[in-house]
Amino acid sequence: MSLKYAVIGTGAIGGYYGGMLAKAGKDVHFLLHSDYEYVKEHGLRIDSVGGNFHLRDLNVYRQAEDMPLSDVVLVCLKSTNNTLLKDLLPPLLQDNTLVILVQNGLGLEADLAKEFPALKNIAGAMAFICSNKIGFGHIAHLDQGALNLGLYKGDIELLEHVNADLSEAAIKSQVVDLEPARWKKLVWNIPYNGMTVVLNTTTDNLMKYAASRQLIHELMLEVISAANKVGEGKFSVPENFADMMMDTTDKMTPYSPSMKLDYDNKRVLEIEYIYSRPVAEAFNVGFNMSKVSMLERQLQFIQSKYLKA
Amino acid sequence: MSLKYAVIGTGAIGGYYGGMLAKAGKDVHFLLHSDYEYVKEHGLRIDSVGGNFHLRDLNVYRQAEDMPLSDVVLVCLKSTNNTLLKDLLPPLLQDNTLVILVQNGLGLEADLAKEFPALKNIAGAMAFICSNKIGFGHIAHLDQGALNLGLYKGDIELLEHVNADLSEAAIKSQVVDLEPARWKKLVWNIPYNGMTVVLNTTTDNLMKYAASRQLIHELMLEVISAANKVGEGKFSVPENFADMMMDTTDKMTPYSPSMKLDYDNKRVLEIEYIYSRPVAEAFNVGFNMSKVSMLERQLQFIQSKYLKA
Repeated sequence: MSLKYAVIGTGAIGGYYGGMLAKAGKDVHFLLHSDYEYVKEHGLRIDSVGGNFHLRDLNVYRQAEDMPLSDVVLVCLKSTNNTLLKDLLPPLLQDNTLVILVQNGLGLEADLAKEFPALKNIAGAMAFICSNKIGFGHIAHLDQGALNLGLYKGDIELLEHVNADLSEAAIKSQVVDLEPARWKKLVWNIPYNGMTVVLNTTTDNLMKYAASRQLIHELMLEVISAANKVGEGKFSVPENFADMMMDTTDKMTPYSPSMKLDYDNKRVLEIEYIYSRPVAEAFNVGFNMSKVSMLERQLQFIQSKYLKA
Repeated sequence: MSLKYAVIGTGAIGGYYGGMLAKAGKDVHFLLHSDYEYVKEHGLRIDSVGGNFHLRDLNVYRQAEDMPLSDVVLVCLKSTNNTLLKDLLPPLLQDNTLVILVQNGLGLEADLAKEFPALKNIAGAMAFICSNKIGFGHIAHLDQGALNLGLYKGDIELLEHVNADLSEAAIKSQVVDLEPARWKKLVWNIPYNGMTVVLNTTTDNLMKYAASRQLIHELMLEVISAANKVGEGKFSVPENFADMMMDTTDKMTPYSPSMKLDYDNKRVLEIEYIYSRPVAEAFNVGFNMSKVSMLERQLQFIQSKYLKA
């Protein structure tokens, strides 16, 4: 049986992973918003470190109502747009549809399960990728590209099938435990997303100066401590995972994480799922994420100022 | 006996307090650097909420060697320039000279005492004032103006004499215990100096948004906790001192603290005495100033970037 994929949100993430699946001959249907006209006519261009490609004659849609029922929905929206899912998802759902949230942060799957209690299969995906949308139907894939999949509820075999499809599409993917994987992703996202915004800089600059290197490392250790407190008896993240993330970033191309691009374009920032929820979850088990909550408030201030301006 | 005053550093602080003393007929001698020529010719203008005034024929000097021996030296330099004191102070000192550091931060008097072991009289002064230097020989005094004096070592009567002179000069002053007063001053300085720089804003904006208000309050509480840990058995600062500082700032004119002006003009920031020393003193008694040290590192990053540029 071959799976029918819907991709909601065809930006840096959805465009890349959906594009790779389509290139490999998978049955992929893309929902587009501002890029619809352009991609309908010109297709989707992906400038990738793994080799550039240009996909024409994709299955593209302007509204979810026109899309076929799907076996798998890849939600690649900014989490700040998840309120749209109550309208976008229902037309795509059949009895066993698996919805995969390819997003950053904590509590995303729980919120979706609450909003759609009948949904049988929910997973999360952690994208380890440097990619940006640089124009209409035009994605730049700068570095990395792995995708980790974790089941929140439902059919693990369906998720394994997706994993196999991704591998066939030359994407480095694996199935992992969702909760520790979500926290591990935050070990990178929390310091770099927030600090590139607050200090208006890029990852390489943060790595270049002693003070910011040390702060990045301290923020990572705080996330790891929170994870281990939340995960007590279930999972743990080793402290040296912070060093691994520092090493990875040292080797990365100079990068503006998605939150920095949102800031540069004065869009709503993904503060809720990347900062507020982890701080709240840690607080609930008696751990105070002191530095992370400071970063949260700095980001809220910055965003309030430009959104109200 | 009337006291002979030397003012080292005739900027927003030295210009105002020295100017007020001179206006009241005290014997004041000003050391100037970049403003010397201008003030020599045109005098010192102070636009004050308490009434504007213009002082001509002041005793101004280009170098300390030309100044008379003094009873009291008011050091009104940025603390980042305290390395200059080893050359600027000796020409002014006689047997009983009182050196008063009108500066922000912690450990200033201890460093001076170490550098000048023969110095008998050392005090610190905490200026509660909104004032900026807005041009050559031109100070804007925007709000407040009180000066608290605290003895570090030596003759308390001499400090009381200075206190009386300040009162005669219409400056609201009092003699207080130095160490708790230094910490209390930090309750304001640490959040507002750093946050106006990191978030590139003014005090009124920080007070306007819920997120920054809360963070300011949390930073204040962290400084108070550190003070109380350091002061255990000696002094304590009540928690509601934070609320008082918030109230004061709510009523203040929109203000760029001196560190923000240093940042705007790409000068060295007073990170050492306002952040690093308090963090280190608290650490020595087992208290981790988590948020304050984060602010310290953010400031160090910002400064490194523009100083190396």
